[in-house]
Amino acid sequence: MQISLGELAARLAVPLRGDGGVMVDHIAPLDNAGPGSLSFLGDPAYRVHLAGTHASAVILKESDAADARVPVLLSENPYLTFARAARLLHPEPEVIGGIHPSAVVDPTASVDPTAWIGPLTVLEAGVVIGPRVFVGPGCILGEGVEVGADSRLTARVTLCSGTRVGARALIHPGAVIGREGFGFAKDGERWVRIPQIGRAVLGDDVEVGANTSVDRGTIGDTVIGHGVKLDNHIQIGHNVVIGDHTAMAANTGISGSTRIGRHCTIAGAVGVAGHLEIGDNVHFTGMAMVTRSFKDPGVYSSGIPAMPNTDWRRNVVRFRHLDDLARRVKQLETLITNMNAIREQEAS
Amino acid sequence: MQISLGELAARLAVPLRGDGGVMVDHIAPLDNAGPGSLSFLGDPAYRVHLAGTHASAVILKESDAADARVPVLLSENPYLTFARAARLLHPEPEVIGGIHPSAVVDPTASVDPTAWIGPLTVLEAGVVIGPRVFVGPGCILGEGVEVGADSRLTARVTLCSGTRVGARALIHPGAVIGREGFGFAKDGERWVRIPQIGRAVLGDDVEVGANTSVDRGTIGDTVIGHGVKLDNHIQIGHNVVIGDHTAMAANTGISGSTRIGRHCTIAGAVGVAGHLEIGDNVHFTGMAMVTRSFKDPGVYSSGIPAMPNTDWRRNVVRFRHLDDLARRVKQLETLITNMNAIREQEAS
Amino acid sequence: MQISLGELAARLAVPLRGDGGVMVDHIAPLDNAGPGSLSFLGDPAYRVHLAGTHASAVILKESDAADARVPVLLSENPYLTFARAARLLHPEPEVIGGIHPSAVVDPTASVDPTAWIGPLTVLEAGVVIGPRVFVGPGCILGEGVEVGADSRLTARVTLCSGTRVGARALIHPGAVIGREGFGFAKDGERWVRIPQIGRAVLGDDVEVGANTSVDRGTIGDTVIGHGVKLDNHIQIGHNVVIGDHTAMAANTGISGSTRIGRHCTIAGAVGVAGHLEIGDNVHFTGMAMVTRSFKDPGVYSSGIPAMPNTDWRRNVVRFRHLDDLARRVKQLETLITNMNAIREQEAS
Repeated sequence: MQISLGELAARLAVPLRGDGGVMVDHIAPLDNAGPGSLSFLGDPAYRVHLAGTHASAVILKESDAADARVPVLLSENPYLTFARAARLLHPEPEVIGGIHPSAVVDPTASVDPTAWIGPLTVLEAGVVIGPRVFVGPGCILGEGVEVGADSRLTARVTLCSGTRVGARALIHPGAVIGREGFGFAKDGERWVRIPQIGRAVLGDDVEVGANTSVDRGTIGDTVIGHGVKLDNHIQIGHNVVIGDHTAMAANTGISGSTRIGRHCTIAGAVGVAGHLEIGDNVHFTGMAMVTRSFKDPGVYSSGIPAMPNTDWRRNVVRFRHLDDLARRVKQLETLITNMNAIREQEAS
Repeated sequence: MQISLGELAARLAVPLRGDGGVMVDHIAPLDNAGPGSLSFLGDPAYRVHLAGTHASAVILKESDAADARVPVLLSENPYLTFARAARLLHPEPEVIGGIHPSAVVDPTASVDPTAWIGPLTVLEAGVVIGPRVFVGPGCILGEGVEVGADSRLTARVTLCSGTRVGARALIHPGAVIGREGFGFAKDGERWVRIPQIGRAVLGDDVEVGANTSVDRGTIGDTVIGHGVKLDNHIQIGHNVVIGDHTAMAANTGISGSTRIGRHCTIAGAVGVAGHLEIGDNVHFTGMAMVTRSFKDPGVYSSGIPAMPNTDWRRNVVRFRHLDDLARRVKQLETLITNMNAIREQEAS
Repeated sequence: MQISLGELAARLAVPLRGDGGVMVDHIAPLDNAGPGSLSFLGDPAYRVHLAGTHASAVILKESDAADARVPVLLSENPYLTFARAARLLHPEPEVIGGIHPSAVVDPTASVDPTAWIGPLTVLEAGVVIGPRVFVGPGCILGEGVEVGADSRLTARVTLCSGTRVGARALIHPGAVIGREGFGFAKDGERWVRIPQIGRAVLGDDVEVGANTSVDRGTIGDTVIGHGVKLDNHIQIGHNVVIGDHTAMAANTGISGSTRIGRHCTIAGAVGVAGHLEIGDNVHFTGMAMVTRSFKDPGVYSSGIPAMPNTDWRRNVVRFRHLDDLARRVKQLETLITNMNAIREQEAS
C-alpha cells in the first residue's frame, strides 16, 4: 500500500516535520532503506545510520530529529508508532466470507457468512465461527469449538473439542489447543488415565505460536488471559491459568495447575514446575528453572552461562563437591577464629 | 452419564457408606461440587474442604470417612478409584465403524469394519487398522503402518512408513512417529545422510502427546514399551528403547541409542544424552541434564533453581571461578595446617 | 536392492578384498548380521564383533582388515562409505510426476511435470515446484512458495507464504517454515504486533526435522545456509542467519537476529539468546545456555550434570550463597596473610 506522509501522520496521530506529499509504501531498516521506505529510530545504537539513511521518512523521538535529513514523524515511542505504521503499509489481507468446497463442515456447525473456512479444513458438530474469522487450510476444529470475531487461524491449527477462542486471536500452524493433558493415577505398576473433562479457554487478542500446545483442564478449565502472547513450541499443562498480557518466548513449559500473573514476561526455554503461584509483573530470564512460587514482582534467573569446555569441566567437578567446600571454609573460619583467640590470649 | 451410588460402588468394587440410591452424573473437586457431583479426597491438604462440600458423594480413605457429611465410597487409593469412576461417568465415545468419504485410503490398506477412519485422513499402501480403532481427522499413516485394536489417534497424527502401534494406544495431534532420524556421516565439510531403515515400534497401552516425535531406528527399531506415557513436545531419538510403564513429562528429549529402563519417571524438560543406559525405577527431576548412565534405582537431579536476578548474577560470576576458589581453599587449609604445625613446634 | 560386492566396490570407488561375486541386499550391524548383510566397523569399540560376524561383507579401515574372515571393502572413512553403500542398497523411492486428485492446487501454481503433489496437499497462488520434487500428503504451501529440484517434503509440512527452499531439501512432518515470528511493541499494558514482512530462505541440501519451526524475517530474511541440518523440535527465530553446513540437534532454540557461523555443531536442548554473533566452527554441548557472542572456534559448555538428588539439594543450597562463600574465602586469605605478617614481624 502506498500512502502520503501527511495521511500517515494523520492516521497515526503524530506530528510530521517535512513534506507531507512524500509517498511511502514499505518499511525498511535505516541502513537498508531506499525511496519509498519508512524507517524508524528506537534504539540509540542505530543513531549512526540516521544521517546517511536513504529512507523517505523516519519515525523517531523529537530529541533525535535534528540529525535527520529526511522528513520525520515524531513519537515518544517510535517502535510502537512504527508497529502501527507497518500494519497500515502491510495490512492483513481482508477476509472474504465463504467455505472452500474441500472443507468438511458438519451440518450443525455455524459459520458466520463473513468468515472464511479454508481448503481441507474440518469443522465438527456444533462449531461456532464468528464474524470475519479466517480459518486457513488444514485446520481441525473439534466438537463444540467456538472462535470469536476477527480471529485468524493461519493454517493447520488443531482446536480440540470444547475449546473457546476469543476475538482477534492469531494462531499459528501446528498449534494444538485443548488436547487431553497428562494426568494418571498409579494402579500398582500401571498408569490409569484420569479423564480430562475441562476445556481450554483463550481470551481476546491471544496469540499462539507454531507447534505450541495448550492442554485442556482436568476438571475446570485451562485459562489463557486477554492479550497473552505465546511463541512457538510452548507447553501449557492442564489447569494452568495465565494472566492478561503475559508474554512467553519459545520452548518454555508451564506444568499443570500453575497460575501465572498478569504482565509477566517469560523468556525462552524456561521450565515452571506444577502447582506454583507466580505473581503479576514477574520476569523470568531465559532457561530459568522455576521450582517454587514467586509472588513478588521482579526479575528471577537461573542457569549457568556457557563457557569454554575446559573451564566448564573443571568447575562442574567442583560443583559436585560444593557442599563439602562450604563446610571446609566454615572449618577454616573456626580454626582461624580459634588461632586468633589463642594468640590474643597469649598476647595478653 | 448418570449412575446410582449403589451401582457405582458395585462396578468399582468398593464399599459404600450412605444412600445407594443417590445419583451422580459428573466429577468435580470438593470445593467446587454441587448436586450430582462425585468428588474425592486424596491429598490430606484438601481435607479442609470435606465437611463443607456440596458433592453428592466423595471417594476417600476409611480413615477420612468420619468427617464426611455425605455418602462416601471407601478406597485405599482414592485417586485411582476416582480415575475409574470418572471414566464411567465420562466414557470415551463409542467408535462407529466406517470410512469418511473424504479420506484417501489405498486399496491395499486393510481396515477392520469396526474401525473409524476420519475425514481427510490418508492411509497409504498396506496399512492395517485393527478392530475398534479410531483414526481421527487429518491423520497420515504411511506405507505398511499397523495399528492395534482399540487405539485412538485423536486427530492429525502422522505415523511414518512401517510404524507399529499396539493395542489401546492414545496418540494426540501433531505427534510424528517413525520419521527418519538425525544420522549423518561427515564427508569433508558436508553431512551425508545415513539411511534410516529401522522402524518405530510402540507396545500396548502407549500414550503419545501433542507434537511429540519418535524417530525410527537407523538399523533395528526404536522401541516404546507397554504402558509408556509420553507427554507433549517430547523428542525420542533413533534406536532409543524405553522400558514398560515409564512416563515422561513435556519438553524432554532422549538422544539416540539410549536405553531407559522400566517404571522410570522423567520430569519435564529433561535432556538425556545418547548411548546411555538408564536402569529401572530411575527418576529424573525437572530439567535434569543427564550425561552419564544411571543404572541404580534412585532420584537424580540437576540444575540451579531460579533466584532473584541480582543474586544470580553474583553467584554465576563466582561459578566461572569455582575451580580457582576450590584451589584457594585447599591452599588455605595447607597454610593453616603448616601454621599450626609451626605453632605446636614452637610450643613444644 | 541386491548388488554384488564387485559392483558395490566399483560404485563406491573403494578397494575390495574377497569374492566380488558375493551378493549383499541390506545393511546390518556387525553383531546382528546374516547372509546378504553389509556391515561396517568404524568405532574401535565394535572391533570385538568383527571376527565372529555373519555379515557377507564389512566396510572397514585397512588396519582392521586382518581380523576379518569375510570379504571387506577398504575405506579411510568407513562410516561415510557405509552411508553411501546404505543409500545404494536402500534408495529413496523414485518420484513419479503427477498431482493427486485430492490435492488443492491453485491454478496459478506451477508444478514441474516430474514432481509429485500428494493427497490432501494445498498449493496456494503462485507456488513454484521444481523438477522431481516430492510433496507428500497433507502439506500446505502458502502463496508464492518456491521449492527447488529434488527436494522432499515427506508429509504434513507447512511452508508459509513467500518461503524459499533450495534443491535437495528434506523436510519432515510437522515442520513450520516461514510463520510470522514473535515481535511486539509495548503500548502501555498491551502488546502490539510488528508485522513480519520478511521471508524464510533455505539453501540447498537443507534438512528440517519433525515439528521444527523457522520463523520468517521481520524485515529482511531468516536465512538457513546450504547443507544445514536441523533435527526435531528446533526453534529458529526471526532474522536468524545460519551458516553453511552447521548442524543442530533436537529441542534447541535460536532467538531472533542471532547469527550462527559455518560448520558449527549445536547439541540438543541448547538455548541461544538473541542478537548474538557465533563464529565458524563453534561447538556447543548439550543444554548449553548461550547468553553472549562466541566468535572464536572452540567447544563451549554449560549446565550441571545430574547427580543423586540428596547431593544436588545440598550443593544447590550452597550455590545460592556462592558469592558469599567466595567473599569469605577472600577474607580468610586476608586474615592469614595478616597473621603471617604479624608472625614474621614477631619473629624478626
